[in-house]
Amino acid sequence: MFTHMKDLQFEAKPDGPDAAFARRLQEILGGKWGEMTVANQYLFQGWNCRLPGKYKDLLLDVGTEEMGHVEMISTMITRLLENAPLALSEAAEDSPMVGAIYGGSNPAHFIHGGGGALPVDSAGVPWNASFITASGNLMADFQLNVTAEAQGRLQVSRLFNMTDDPGVKQMLRFLLARDTMHQRMWLAAIEQLKEDGLEGMPVPEAFPDSKEFEDFGRTYLDFSPGNDAAEGAWASGPTPDGKGEFRYDHSPRAHAPEPVLPPGDPRLYGTNPSGPGKLASKVKSAVT
Amino acid sequence: MFTHMKDLQFEAKPDGPDAAFARRLQEILGGKWGEMTVANQYLFQGWNCRLPGKYKDLLLDVGTEEMGHVEMISTMITRLLENAPLALSEAAEDSPMVGAIYGGSNPAHFIHGGGGALPVDSAGVPWNASFITASGNLMADFQLNVTAEAQGRLQVSRLFNMTDDPGVKQMLRFLLARDTMHQRMWLAAIEQLKEDGLEGMPVPEAFPDSKEFEDFGRTYLDFSPGNDAAEGAWASGPTPDGKGEFRYDHSPRAHAPEPVLPPGDPRLYGTNPSGPGKLASKVKSAVT
Amino acid sequence: MFTHMKDLQFEAKPDGPDAAFARRLQEILGGKWGEMTVANQYLFQGWNCRLPGKYKDLLLDVGTEEMGHVEMISTMITRLLENAPLALSEAAEDSPMVGAIYGGSNPAHFIHGGGGALPVDSAGVPWNASFITASGNLMADFQLNVTAEAQGRLQVSRLFNMTDDPGVKQMLRFLLARDTMHQRMWLAAIEQLKEDGLEGMPVPEAFPDSKEFEDFGRTYLDFSPGNDAAEGAWASGPTPDGKGEFRYDHSPRAHAPEPVLPPGDPRLYGTNPSGPGKLASKVKSAVT
Amino acid sequence: MFTHMKDLQFEAKPDGPDAAFARRLQEILGGKWGEMTVANQYLFQGWNCRLPGKYKDLLLDVGTEEMGHVEMISTMITRLLENAPLALSEAAEDSPMVGAIYGGSNPAHFIHGGGGALPVDSAGVPWNASFITASGNLMADFQLNVTAEAQGRLQVSRLFNMTDDPGVKQMLRFLLARDTMHQRMWLAAIEQLKEDGLEGMPVPEAFPDSKEFEDFGRTYLDFSPGNDAAEGAWASGPTPDGKGEFRYDHSPRAHAPEPVLPPGDPRLYGTNPSGPGKLASKVKSAVT
Amino acid sequence: MFTHMKDLQFEAKPDGPDAAFARRLQEILGGKWGEMTVANQYLFQGWNCRLPGKYKDLLLDVGTEEMGHVEMISTMITRLLENAPLALSEAAEDSPMVGAIYGGSNPAHFIHGGGGALPVDSAGVPWNASFITASGNLMADFQLNVTAEAQGRLQVSRLFNMTDDPGVKQMLRFLLARDTMHQRMWLAAIEQLKEDGLEGMPVPEAFPDSKEFEDFGRTYLDFSPGNDAAEGAWASGPTPDGKGEFRYDHSPRAHAPEPVLPPGDPRLYGTNPSGPGKLASKVKSAVT
Amino acid sequence: MFTHMKDLQFEAKPDGPDAAFARRLQEILGGKWGEMTVANQYLFQGWNCRLPGKYKDLLLDVGTEEMGHVEMISTMITRLLENAPLALSEAAEDSPMVGAIYGGSNPAHFIHGGGGALPVDSAGVPWNASFITASGNLMADFQLNVTAEAQGRLQVSRLFNMTDDPGVKQMLRFLLARDTMHQRMWLAAIEQLKEDGLEGMPVPEAFPDSKEFEDFGRTYLDFSPGNDAAEGAWASGPTPDGKGEFRYDHSPRAHAPEPVLPPGDPRLYGTNPSGPGKLASKVKSAVT
Repeated sequence: MFTHMKDLQFEAKPDGPDAAFARRLQEILGGKWGEMTVANQYLFQGWNCRLPGKYKDLLLDVGTEEMGHVEMISTMITRLLENAPLALSEAAEDSPMVGAIYGGSNPAHFIHGGGGALPVDSAGVPWNASFITASGNLMADFQLNVTAEAQGRLQVSRLFNMTDDPGVKQMLRFLLARDTMHQRMWLAAIEQLKEDGLEGMPVPEAFPDSKEFEDFGRTYLDFSPGNDAAEGAWASGPTPDGKGEFRYDHSPRAHAPEPVLPPGDPRLYGTNPSGPGKLASKVKSAVT
Repeated sequence: MFTHMKDLQFEAKPDGPDAAFARRLQEILGGKWGEMTVANQYLFQGWNCRLPGKYKDLLLDVGTEEMGHVEMISTMITRLLENAPLALSEAAEDSPMVGAIYGGSNPAHFIHGGGGALPVDSAGVPWNASFITASGNLMADFQLNVTAEAQGRLQVSRLFNMTDDPGVKQMLRFLLARDTMHQRMWLAAIEQLKEDGLEGMPVPEAFPDSKEFEDFGRTYLDFSPGNDAAEGAWASGPTPDGKGEFRYDHSPRAHAPEPVLPPGDPRLYGTNPSGPGKLASKVKSAVT
Repeated sequence: MFTHMKDLQFEAKPDGPDAAFARRLQEILGGKWGEMTVANQYLFQGWNCRLPGKYKDLLLDVGTEEMGHVEMISTMITRLLENAPLALSEAAEDSPMVGAIYGGSNPAHFIHGGGGALPVDSAGVPWNASFITASGNLMADFQLNVTAEAQGRLQVSRLFNMTDDPGVKQMLRFLLARDTMHQRMWLAAIEQLKEDGLEGMPVPEAFPDSKEFEDFGRTYLDFSPGNDAAEGAWASGPTPDGKGEFRYDHSPRAHAPEPVLPPGDPRLYGTNPSGPGKLASKVKSAVT
Repeated sequence: MFTHMKDLQFEAKPDGPDAAFARRLQEILGGKWGEMTVANQYLFQGWNCRLPGKYKDLLLDVGTEEMGHVEMISTMITRLLENAPLALSEAAEDSPMVGAIYGGSNPAHFIHGGGGALPVDSAGVPWNASFITASGNLMADFQLNVTAEAQGRLQVSRLFNMTDDPGVKQMLRFLLARDTMHQRMWLAAIEQLKEDGLEGMPVPEAFPDSKEFEDFGRTYLDFSPGNDAAEGAWASGPTPDGKGEFRYDHSPRAHAPEPVLPPGDPRLYGTNPSGPGKLASKVKSAVT
Repeated sequence: MFTHMKDLQFEAKPDGPDAAFARRLQEILGGKWGEMTVANQYLFQGWNCRLPGKYKDLLLDVGTEEMGHVEMISTMITRLLENAPLALSEAAEDSPMVGAIYGGSNPAHFIHGGGGALPVDSAGVPWNASFITASGNLMADFQLNVTAEAQGRLQVSRLFNMTDDPGVKQMLRFLLARDTMHQRMWLAAIEQLKEDGLEGMPVPEAFPDSKEFEDFGRTYLDFSPGNDAAEGAWASGPTPDGKGEFRYDHSPRAHAPEPVLPPGDPRLYGTNPSGPGKLASKVKSAVT
Repeated sequence: MFTHMKDLQFEAKPDGPDAAFARRLQEILGGKWGEMTVANQYLFQGWNCRLPGKYKDLLLDVGTEEMGHVEMISTMITRLLENAPLALSEAAEDSPMVGAIYGGSNPAHFIHGGGGALPVDSAGVPWNASFITASGNLMADFQLNVTAEAQGRLQVSRLFNMTDDPGVKQMLRFLLARDTMHQRMWLAAIEQLKEDGLEGMPVPEAFPDSKEFEDFGRTYLDFSPGNDAAEGAWASGPTPDGKGEFRYDHSPRAHAPEPVLPPGDPRLYGTNPSGPGKLASKVKSAVT
């Protein structure tokens, strides 16, 4: 169960309007790596978490904080949309900057949203829940959370270089710091999982090694001419888990012949090798 | 530029048909964490990679291999779809197993695909390219690749427990091993990036610390009653990058007042505080 | 800013597992009219609301409550997924009921979600944010909210008839009651908007009547043979806003001739009437 | 069965081209609340309607009219796309207005559509059928239809303020009037449903009150500090259906303890409390 | 402008209910190649058609007919949904056939649609408008229309083999015939376009041959070992347009060196070859 | 199994940057008719092809080539994105051309892709796999492949007219030629299928004529006033397959009465004709 404070976690007030930047800021609200993603991802991971205590608490705490970030960025976007050029005549009468804003803005902000933030990305594509994963395996998911915060902070740092507005930059400074914290936090949580003896790498650790073809589990297969990739730490030396040594296969071979499919069910009217000629006999000999 | 071998990287032949399992296997073909995702993700990361040499080679090699996995799983699915019950009458006349297959299969396999694999997930939703990211920052993307292989191997291991077919299990053993290798590989590549002095954590390392609010970069904010989360490695002690100490804030405060938005552009016909009464004056005093 | 309570707003515990019903319950979690929709819709409407005070508070309060409903239903689904048949062999060995569960369940619950709830609808299609609207006009949006709660309660009442599980039914009773309250609430809020002199019907009331073709604003156009529709309250008598009388046009006429488009830009290589014959001259005379 | 007149219901001819406005006009063609939505929504509601006579006729008549609106707006958009700047050189050589048109237009209009209208919204996202609902319950659906026409008219009125073109404005005047009529019509139809004794509020009226927790059906739950929402008509006084009185709960409580999930099926390799330590025993005591 | 007849173009009445087949039939209503696709595709092609007269008339006539097919199939589906098992208890108590129907049906038919047809495909994914194309070039589009009718008839013929219901089969016989007619019609229209001197192959015929690399326009490039493809009519002999001869290249070569990208804008924080070592100098020499 | 060459099939180097054109070029990378579509479509058709030999080889060869086109266009786009204006200040300080580029570019190229190509279309919508079809029937699919290459070449030819950059035009010349070859090739393959006696038209040829209503298979139904369509080759004369003569029906009639649906399952709470009045009795008499 949630409660809501009317105050914001951090100030979200630009010094001036900029509808083109409002569109860009949508990426960290409703884009694949935006705040709607991390909020929902951590909450679903938390709700599905079968470990009561610190891990579940961690997931639900941070998911709850991210809901407050959605709120901040929405507020910022709505304020950036003030005084926007609505018509071509406004865009052209004024400075070239107004023309660039007109061209660079998202018309749906005005037609659909009435001058308010939308749950979409910087292209105007709606957020969707395939962006989030809650797999039930905390090691796999914490790895995902690391990259989610890394991708998110990367995007915020790019946006930081796309505006001169001091008020916007102030909020981005806060978001950058939280993304820093959250990267650190998920990395620490990965270590904690190992320390607690709950999960390790490779995921899922509980799947027995003996059931997979172990040799393929440490061999780099080089599918292009040239040996550049052989210079990397993934081509020789110990694997990160210390369980063996990497190997390098310069010319990986195919392990199975060309697949020949049997004729399909005639009730499906696919093209089958049914004629009297060469094709049909070739199939017959290959399938039997 | 690519070339194609007619042989398969590994055998993809079930011992018998099972249309319901064919539907399930689609998850690792056309699902969020399936082979279409890793193939395209690594190739796009490779094409966008600005570092010639081992990293670019690594990305394109592995992306190319994954295309061959798409091929193997497609072939397996098509073979699993043989002899499927097409009609309710077939489903009901036969054993309960046939009824369960009928109910558990994806009708589009037959109506749209004519008995062949589809580029969709286990629910029948088409694969889409928002599943992949190529951010230009290799540290962020290698972290993503770690989780992609972890999520992928997790799904394969679950599917391994959902079938008794020896031929299917044989192919899954191969895929499990390659996912093991790929997890190891991306972890090694992360270390290599650090060693080469190219990238570190938090991402992006090049963004100057001084421009963010550093204190927020190491403080856990506890948004729920109770202190479970305080027991974790993310709540105290050194941060994973060794640059400071985690701190724990038991009752995080709001840093900005309730946001009050100014009246909107009247040409957009939003609901504005325009009447003579209490609401309008409250707004006026808050905004000015 | 939000905070989270660890307790649930209401109990979400089934008496027994039922993976097929878990799939069905997803509709009110991640479907178009599910809890993710109302939670996000009310929150976005609240964040974009330009009226401080009771309306903004209403929207954010109820959006916050709905987040807690997402939590409850997620929890219920995860519990319903316990002990599910993972493989065809399990489905077929057991009772016909197990076969029906196998066929009627969503495989992604296990392969992707590891036995946990997913942010998808009953077909397995991910929730997306085009389901929500925050138009900035409270009258338009409160009307949407009425139907959202009506569609939602309709779906819950149908699900109530699709299960015999006492624990599930108990939670649905709670949700039914909240949907009842919320329908009443949005209807009351519509009246309040009128009373406060902020908005009326038709939306947007502020658009001047004189700028539209008023006669078309009260005339029913009958586009089919027969007069059944003429029997309705929309065909004669006063309009609901009392501003005029409905009229009925039994054979609406076209007001403009067949549109003839000019030849397109030749650089776009569309098919243009460019030959020497009849088509080209017909176009030329029509366009000029 | 349908027939088609070659003439248009109303003239759709701009005085001049404006490719940027053409993009904006797409919102009411292929956007969530555009003409494709209402046309298909009313037709599906009509086809699924189990009441022969005036209601079914109403739905199918108006759906048929809306198909004619799709036609009008398509025609208008195609005409607005004439003489558009195709290349950057054209955009930059000419006036700033041409640059703004270039930036503000949708390139797919030319590359994909060859200078013709597309079934997409103002961002270029394709229309999809999740925008429509035909629930089988006419009260729920007529409420949806009211907001569809309200949202639609709101968007048209905004577009009216985004252009100076007299020909465009003429068509919008017609659409505004029809949206006015349709709002009135659906409101009248709601009253007619009540009068005919077919449906009432809350939806579905036929679900027995006694099966829900009635007290929760009239209580406002305040999930934030402060009492602004208590000032509204939804917080006290009679409910709109006159069946009771609203109540206000200033500090709603949780009715169920923190949910503790049992360990998951080990074949799914989720993270389970399986270790010898504190976590596992905490789970065991909570679950049993 | 359209009008609607209340009668159906052809009878759409099954002899009995079958909710699992209703789900399958959705493929030709709301699937990629279903009736919603052809109806909307032909109408958009017609509205965007710049040739008044027979071609525009053809497109709009057939699009209008297809709207009537949407109506017929919707009606059929709604009737097939009668008496469906709503609950697991019903599915299990009854015959195995009822269990198979339960598992093989789409729950949204009942929860969302109230027992009525939905605008979705056989997996439950909503129809979307990216399924249709109106390119402005009639030759390209008529080719698309040929395949649309071919794919459509293929699906109907498969569905014909998936049911024993005489009433359903009767309607499918009608649809099969119309799809036959429409395939014939679009093939005839392609010939007519050529005869009228409006378009030819390859599309777009108006693009000057001299501006492309003509040799690449007739050479088969063999990207795999083995010469099977050399046996086809595409490998030697005259091209279908008679403008030249096919050629076969057994080992196509790359025409450009490995691409080396310059360092990216540092404000975007991508991984750049900026260190002092080998990588950076390799880049520098390659780019300059 | 695939291998990768580091070299490009053809040079992909612009003479200068142009971020607005980069966005436009995305249409042939990640749009419906772009290279991702043809690559995946041909590969899936090949993997599902049940005819070993020349057809399967053809499909897999060409699919493999198209993967190399994805690579080329990605590389070109990344190079076109160099030196782009990231901020409004840059856009406005400079020439109007920079403003037009700013407005006409896709911000996600920078925020999400870090200056690299994205798997999206020119509007920024991600590619999805519903764009591809592999039906199992080679005649239906080769027809689709013809139009895919026709639509593709049409788009490339339009893009050719949207840029003055010699390097870009050079690559487009190559793509145009390959699209020419591929159109010719699929047309030849259609003839080959007929010659080999494998498939004919209408698709599927194997469905027995006698099972459809043959008369409807050759009759043009004119659903609009006027006779323009009667002038076409589809209205009279022999059908393309020579099996009969087209006929023209000037006023097609409905073959079934208005459908009347029975009352729905009361457990679904749809609106049923249950009252004592006129509606209910009308239904009763119609249904029985």
